[in-house]
Amino acid sequence: MDSYLIQVNGHGDCAPVMDVHLNTNGNSLSLGKVKGRKPRWAVRASEMSKKTFNPVRAIVDSMKVEPNPRKAMISLSLGDPTVFGNLPTNDEVTQAVKEILDSGRYNGYAPSVGYQSCREAVAAYYNCPEAPLEAQDVILTSGCSQAIELALAVLANPGQNILVPRPGFSLYKTLALSMGIEVKFYNLLPEKSWEIDLKHLESLVDEKTACLVINNPSNPCGSVFSKSHLQKILAVASRHCVPILADEIYGDMVFADCKYEPIATLSTNVPILSCGGLAKRWLVPGWRMGWILIHDRRDIFGNEIRDGLLRLSQRILGPCTIIQGALEHILHRTPPEFYHNTLSILKSNADLCYAALSAIPGLQPVRPAGAMYLMVEIEMEHFPEFENDVEFTERLISEQSVFCLPATCFEYPNFFRVVITVPEEMILEACSRIQEFCEMHYQGAEGAQDMECDK
Amino acid sequence: MDSYLIQVNGHGDCAPVMDVHLNTNGNSLSLGKVKGRKPRWAVRASEMSKKTFNPVRAIVDSMKVEPNPRKAMISLSLGDPTVFGNLPTNDEVTQAVKEILDSGRYNGYAPSVGYQSCREAVAAYYNCPEAPLEAQDVILTSGCSQAIELALAVLANPGQNILVPRPGFSLYKTLALSMGIEVKFYNLLPEKSWEIDLKHLESLVDEKTACLVINNPSNPCGSVFSKSHLQKILAVASRHCVPILADEIYGDMVFADCKYEPIATLSTNVPILSCGGLAKRWLVPGWRMGWILIHDRRDIFGNEIRDGLLRLSQRILGPCTIIQGALEHILHRTPPEFYHNTLSILKSNADLCYAALSAIPGLQPVRPAGAMYLMVEIEMEHFPEFENDVEFTERLISEQSVFCLPATCFEYPNFFRVVITVPEEMILEACSRIQEFCEMHYQGAEGAQDMECDK
Ligand SMILES: Cc1ncc(COP(=O)(O)O)c(C=O)c1O
Ligand SMILES: Cc1ncc(COP(=O)(O)O)c(C=O)c1O
Repeated sequence: MDSYLIQVNGHGDCAPVMDVHLNTNGNSLSLGKVKGRKPRWAVRASEMSKKTFNPVRAIVDSMKVEPNPRKAMISLSLGDPTVFGNLPTNDEVTQAVKEILDSGRYNGYAPSVGYQSCREAVAAYYNCPEAPLEAQDVILTSGCSQAIELALAVLANPGQNILVPRPGFSLYKTLALSMGIEVKFYNLLPEKSWEIDLKHLESLVDEKTACLVINNPSNPCGSVFSKSHLQKILAVASRHCVPILADEIYGDMVFADCKYEPIATLSTNVPILSCGGLAKRWLVPGWRMGWILIHDRRDIFGNEIRDGLLRLSQRILGPCTIIQGALEHILHRTPPEFYHNTLSILKSNADLCYAALSAIPGLQPVRPAGAMYLMVEIEMEHFPEFENDVEFTERLISEQSVFCLPATCFEYPNFFRVVITVPEEMILEACSRIQEFCEMHYQGAEGAQDMECDK
Repeated sequence: MDSYLIQVNGHGDCAPVMDVHLNTNGNSLSLGKVKGRKPRWAVRASEMSKKTFNPVRAIVDSMKVEPNPRKAMISLSLGDPTVFGNLPTNDEVTQAVKEILDSGRYNGYAPSVGYQSCREAVAAYYNCPEAPLEAQDVILTSGCSQAIELALAVLANPGQNILVPRPGFSLYKTLALSMGIEVKFYNLLPEKSWEIDLKHLESLVDEKTACLVINNPSNPCGSVFSKSHLQKILAVASRHCVPILADEIYGDMVFADCKYEPIATLSTNVPILSCGGLAKRWLVPGWRMGWILIHDRRDIFGNEIRDGLLRLSQRILGPCTIIQGALEHILHRTPPEFYHNTLSILKSNADLCYAALSAIPGLQPVRPAGAMYLMVEIEMEHFPEFENDVEFTERLISEQSVFCLPATCFEYPNFFRVVITVPEEMILEACSRIQEFCEMHYQGAEGAQDMECDK
């Protein structure tokens, strides 16, 4: 027989303190349950898990359509360049990992921010006179996704806001909302090759703005900001003293006629966390190797943000040590031809796709300059059968077995995104099916009016 | 010249709506700054980053001592079995990863919960009649740390509490506090081989208890719960309808005279998230391969918790695909001798260490039955020179160049933890230095009184 002495403290000012003895016949009772009924199972998922929302998954899962059984499926939806085997990574990249495995020296725990030597390798690779970097400015992360997570988590408190591009990669919003951070969208302008609407951007800044997220080169736009545009973005950030989170995972992935400038090389004062990784340029997204580069020449982040990042990195530790160990070799021994080859394939696919889609009535592709995507406007007034981009792309699956992501996934209705890493013949076949589809459903000015009258 | 139309809304009931025109000479001003002074840089690290606190780091960093330059340093502090090269992983494990690399088929994105085939491999490996598992019950994570993070994040809301062992692994508290979840410590009893003080445990449960964390086999205790003790723990959880988070990263790592029971095999109703991974048993902690096994035969977690885990997994995606791909091979082709060999080394080191420390005046080691640790009580009354375990272990470094973690790191003062994965000669040398140290500082009953009088 167990005997418990429980002190129950009332809440009122004069509430008495009672001593209660309970004899519970060997079955202990917890204080919390003393007052209540017999407990019942009721396990609920947390608020945070409910606030964690992936729009791409939600929209794609809601598209309950079967492809046309008479046509093989062509998926231009996944930002994964490895799917079709036409863009393998380089042998040096694989070899580097095998050597590390054989050494047996990279199986243990690394420091939570990464091995010092590997941070040095990344720093040396991205170091330049305009934006010097040392090992201590590099934090290795589990993919660029964790880089973005840590950067947001250190910069923003619940109740603050971040400014993110529209159209834009959905992870910024997913992560921010899961952490109770508000998201404000600034517009990109398709007619200006997806430059930022700077006035709109500036109008969104307020006292609660914790950071400005820019993504250059862009997913989903395939756009690349010019030096002068980047300088204007920096001017906005500087005027309002807002730090920048630069998602540069597609850094250096620009076509030959265009130049990529890391935004940190142009900043004189604005502190920048640049997020990157191996995923795209080295064609190994599954390896989950990312990094944050801390650019802070005016010491505005200071130890405050560095310490914060260090603390946050200790929650689950960083990326696989085998890949960390291989980094130096990967960065320094991957032959330049590998990068050129990838880019020339992407450029050629982009040109083919742009040309083919430009010729289709009712579609307006925007020419990309880098990354691996191309955005296409749907002139919805010419497709009165379809409510929106989601319905348009749904029917494109059921009739033509071609799957493109509706840009509603990127907060930008009436566009769809095409992934251009697939083999050339697939792009061509997909474009010709899209053409057939549009010709079938296109309504000229008159036709559209007929439809109206039919209703 | 830009002209802005700004509507300023007062807060009082009768506050007028004003129209304000601002001419800002080409420099836009944001609404938030209209009222204020010129903005200044003030970037602060978030509250969450400040709440993320790693006690081991904090305590170890505060131990500003130099080892004795005349003695080579022996570190028995890190729970990383790879440090000294005496416990390499098995060739099959490395070979498995190399084959996956060569296949070139595992470089792309996996689903956020892991490849289906790899989840199947883990399910098949841990499946048993008493606790059946299918692929859908397995979530692959970036180390056991991320498994614990996701499990806590899905089960608990800020303001709720979790029950964790004392002494215990510090990550539970680090993660919980960073998420605003309260931590309540239940006692383990050294005199009962670190069994849980069940009455104390039960007294802590209240309406806000979101889950009970158990760690078996235990870090830092090296203890292994018996079947009947696990059944009593389940009875407490069942009476109060509290789900269990079982950290079983040291699962199967028990010495021959002892049996490891996964708690899920004994549960008839309590739903359990079991967290594990490759880190310890396969001796590759740096590879960051972990998992959650969902045991829920009464459908109490239901889709609610499964969906929550799926959503949370999409924040940064899971573990490196190269390691995922190798899982089936690793689980099925690692020879049994490998596991036996590791355990016989650990057992032999544990015995040596236990015997040596038992003979030292003022120390009381607790014999371990598994995992890779051993806890030692310091009879502080016999070491009046030292304030506490931190000072004791500090001086052990400066005088003897032996580094053991003070158990204050595990919320358990007046003990220290010894890691037993190091080579035998090191254990012996360390024990003989600890002996020298204790003999130097030990004060018998009389001596201690002398000290008192001296003061
Ligand atoms: C713009 C952008 N940022 C970040 C990521 C995530 O990169 P990682 O796979 O390295 O986490 C992606 C992936 O598609 C992306 O498109
Ligand atoms: C009890 C316990 N759980 C979890 C972990 C973390 O495991 P992982 O390295 O797979 O994240 C450790 C690591 O030491 C541990 O001791």
